Amino acid sequence: MTVGVSVLLDFFGVQGLEFHQADIWEELLDAVIEIGQLTKLHISSHQFSSRLSSKEGDDASEIGIDLTGGATAYALLAESHISVHTWPEKDKVVVDVFTCGAETNLSAIINFLIEQIPHTNMTITRLVRGKKE
Amino acid sequence: MTVGVSVLLDFFGVQGLEFHQADIWEELLDAVIEIGQLTKLHISSHQFSSRLSSKEGDDASEIGIDLTGGATAYALLAESHISVHTWPEKDKVVVDVFTCGAETNLSAIINFLIEQIPHTNMTITRLVRGKKE
Repeated sequence: MTVGVSVLLDFFGVQGLEFHQADIWEELLDAVIEIGQLTKLHISSHQFSSRLSSKEGDDASEIGIDLTGGATAYALLAESHISVHTWPEKDKVVVDVFTCGAETNLSAIINFLIEQIPHTNMTITRLVRGKKE
Repeated sequence: MTVGVSVLLDFFGVQGLEFHQADIWEELLDAVIEIGQLTKLHISSHQFSSRLSSKEGDDASEIGIDLTGGATAYALLAESHISVHTWPEKDKVVVDVFTCGAETNLSAIINFLIEQIPHTNMTITRLVRGKKE
């Protein structure tokens, strides 16, 4: 007896600013909800206006230049959620999808995200939740 | 170069209704934010009023009795998030913590959740995010 599935998507090489914008992600989450036949309870997002690179030895942090900030977005769904965090300075986007829904809908969501987000590389981790080891 | 850490906590044997209530989780998320020295952007939650057990062979689904619904809650944080889903009919609660913050704060959050949520068993999965394999 389990409660659902978590799929953690890490995208690399997400260049440009489009997929690091909160408003783009609000639109994408609405599209994901439609494709996944999910029930939206609430969507929220936040755009970071700027952020210093925290990586030691990074040129930007050494010279104190503000980099364009990333975005975070979240969809609270009936018995599920989708979360997004982006780092434009690292060209990275991570998306977590947690769903109790049908496996076919989950596949449609993942395929859509992979298709929509331009990337050079990615990893997918799938975990069954609420299952005693 | 990574972007953060996801910690997925699955609690079993969470009996009674207290930890399946959205308002309790809004309070707990505020406490977690304080303990973890995190920056809150937004908290949202939803209480499911009732839900039929979907497990095949479950007594309640066979006789069509509505069970008390679970809760879902979410904290959107600066560069992090915490999500919660509960299933009172299965005595299960899953909590996901994603943070870019210091590892020490993450330990404090996890210890607090383990201490606060009464359970008989649990699993912890820790995943470094945004790290190319």
